[in-house]
Amino acid sequence: MPDSISQVAARSRAAANVLALATRATKDATLETMASALLSDYALIIDANAADVSAAEAAGMPAHMIDRLRLDRSRIEGMAQGLREVAGLPDPVGTVLRGSTLANGLELRQVTVPFGVVGVIYEARPNVTADAAGICLKSGNAVILRGSSSALSSNTAIVTSLRTALTDTGLPEDCVQLAPGEGHDAVKELMRARGLVDVLIPRGGAGLIRSVVEESTVPVIETGVGNCHVYVDADADLEMALAIVLNSKTHRTSVCNSAESLLVHADVAADFLPRVVAALQDADVTIHGDAAFTAYDAVVPATDEDWDTEFLSLDISAAVVPDLGAAIEHIRAHSSGHTEAIVTGSQSAARRFTAEVDSAVVMVNASTRFTDGGEFGFGAEIGISTQKLHARGPLGLPEMTSSKYIVIGDGHVR
Amino acid sequence: MPDSISQVAARSRAAANVLALATRATKDATLETMASALLSDYALIIDANAADVSAAEAAGMPAHMIDRLRLDRSRIEGMAQGLREVAGLPDPVGTVLRGSTLANGLELRQVTVPFGVVGVIYEARPNVTADAAGICLKSGNAVILRGSSSALSSNTAIVTSLRTALTDTGLPEDCVQLAPGEGHDAVKELMRARGLVDVLIPRGGAGLIRSVVEESTVPVIETGVGNCHVYVDADADLEMALAIVLNSKTHRTSVCNSAESLLVHADVAADFLPRVVAALQDADVTIHGDAAFTAYDAVVPATDEDWDTEFLSLDISAAVVPDLGAAIEHIRAHSSGHTEAIVTGSQSAARRFTAEVDSAVVMVNASTRFTDGGEFGFGAEIGISTQKLHARGPLGLPEMTSSKYIVIGDGHVR
Repeated sequence: MPDSISQVAARSRAAANVLALATRATKDATLETMASALLSDYALIIDANAADVSAAEAAGMPAHMIDRLRLDRSRIEGMAQGLREVAGLPDPVGTVLRGSTLANGLELRQVTVPFGVVGVIYEARPNVTADAAGICLKSGNAVILRGSSSALSSNTAIVTSLRTALTDTGLPEDCVQLAPGEGHDAVKELMRARGLVDVLIPRGGAGLIRSVVEESTVPVIETGVGNCHVYVDADADLEMALAIVLNSKTHRTSVCNSAESLLVHADVAADFLPRVVAALQDADVTIHGDAAFTAYDAVVPATDEDWDTEFLSLDISAAVVPDLGAAIEHIRAHSSGHTEAIVTGSQSAARRFTAEVDSAVVMVNASTRFTDGGEFGFGAEIGISTQKLHARGPLGLPEMTSSKYIVIGDGHVR
Repeated sequence: MPDSISQVAARSRAAANVLALATRATKDATLETMASALLSDYALIIDANAADVSAAEAAGMPAHMIDRLRLDRSRIEGMAQGLREVAGLPDPVGTVLRGSTLANGLELRQVTVPFGVVGVIYEARPNVTADAAGICLKSGNAVILRGSSSALSSNTAIVTSLRTALTDTGLPEDCVQLAPGEGHDAVKELMRARGLVDVLIPRGGAGLIRSVVEESTVPVIETGVGNCHVYVDADADLEMALAIVLNSKTHRTSVCNSAESLLVHADVAADFLPRVVAALQDADVTIHGDAAFTAYDAVVPATDEDWDTEFLSLDISAAVVPDLGAAIEHIRAHSSGHTEAIVTGSQSAARRFTAEVDSAVVMVNASTRFTDGGEFGFGAEIGISTQKLHARGPLGLPEMTSSKYIVIGDGHVR
């Protein structure tokens, strides 16, 4: 009989109460120890992972998922390196966000504090286990990790290793725990643990995120679905536009900040379409086009769904729009609110696009691929929020905190 | 057949797209016009309210609720004054929260933007209609208002008046709308309108808030339940402690920042208990005490539930604790995370209490009654958040915004 979520969460809460008070020095030493533990437990982790991989292969898991599940020397070194990088980042806890002395002499300050207990729900990528544990530890949060059951042996080995490191530096080992139970019912328990778990972060594909958002009573930070657009304006430098479209689409296709849709101003269509179609097709991209694009060879007609599709592959939807307003309307209708880019030489077009497009990140003359915590200089990133509450865009360490007001008087009453 | 929530929300979205771009000058002029409209429509609003009050009286609504439902000259003037005060506050939209130039020359800035469409669910207090409309307008959000059906005539009259004002200053009247339909099913529709409504804010009692939190798929900002504690430490100035306990409990009992529980360090119990019991009882407060308190006349024994109860009345639970650690443990077990106060002369006790008590506001030597947007100098307040995501403590205008990143390059690709 596994522990219930309330038992696990109660241990997390007790650990979180201790961790919230830990100094940066203690947390950083722990992260370094965690990194070393992963390397010294390398063989155990690889063995556990091999068992997961065999079972997944026997169950017929697709090759690209097996690839994400599989750990090797370089991936484990990458996990350790990630923990060390988090140790190098500033402590997000204890920052004074604002402060003032009120007219009556009360001293007011708003200070960042950890959330407390954070749940992370993710797919069969065991490296997320170490990444999420490191980010949560540094931000003072106890974490409850719910990976895919197909990675359970790997995750158990990694968590065992990390917990040893916690004990070594004197922090409660329950700062890092796996969620109890298996299957959807167990996930559901975690999603209904309001009051026990402070925040849930789903990391994974659209289906996982939608199910967490729909079913959770715990506050959720929604991450990661990106139907990103590049709009090539009438005033664009077409060489620049070509480079940005290609980079946004083909630099890496499986990620949420890759472009999925191309919009081109009618005034430059005659010039730009032959060049962009040729360049995309040279890069093996299938274009799902409107009537203007299907005039070119091997462009397939876009279906209604294509405009809303996050392909995550060498596919892109593409349309010609009569003007900037129509581009903004199209984006409003179809974007997932992740990242949209305009390519333009016009200051007024850039100003209008950045003001009217309501997405987490709006780019001018830059590839959508720059939406990334690392690129933004935030260091570690636990995901990219596409919701408007709490945090929007790349989630760095500061976004992993809440705040409280501390008010100091000397006998003040109303 | 009333409009569906999707029809109403679509109109709100269109209005929000325009409102998001409105200048502060336009928004402030609109707020002033809204205030004037309420005063010139005074008779219509009073008539509509009289119909609600008669119906509520016929239906046997309790007197204290009738009192909240009833509008008179001074309440309508108060609503108008509230709108004018919001006009006087800084615009929360367009603030640059952070910005930098990245190593590759990309210019990054994070700018506050409106949420878009905000739903506010509240009880039979028609003044909330104008307050919420004003705060949402100033923060650039279209609002969908869902008051109690028992206030529907009043709310309709107020919203009609406010919408006239919007038209007068050229903003879309759909910046302010009532939610369609009646009864719990209609509320449920609003709570499930994820994607159509960006944020829901319930304003009201514990039951209302719990039901919104449980049922909503739209992100919620939880407000208002306060089981606030005052802890009198061993090192307290007992005169100061007496004043703070009395003020926290009796200054106004029906509000979420009033104290509901008193904890006293054992070392000062013999000195302090006779004085605090006498003072509270003089103020007609019923003390629900532990064994130490029931040694005094007319103190009733506390039940298990009393420790978790937000009385909102002249009642207080009271216990003696062996030390500061026990006080913190008690607060962790029973607090709703709103406001807790310590009375102490000890710097180390104050430091420990403010570090270890995880509530939206932690007071040292001050009354819990100071947790308030007005007292904190925030101006208008739409509630006090007791959740950890997005905003915690009094919700001022800045908390009514999201943000987006604007990234400017000159052809940057990865």
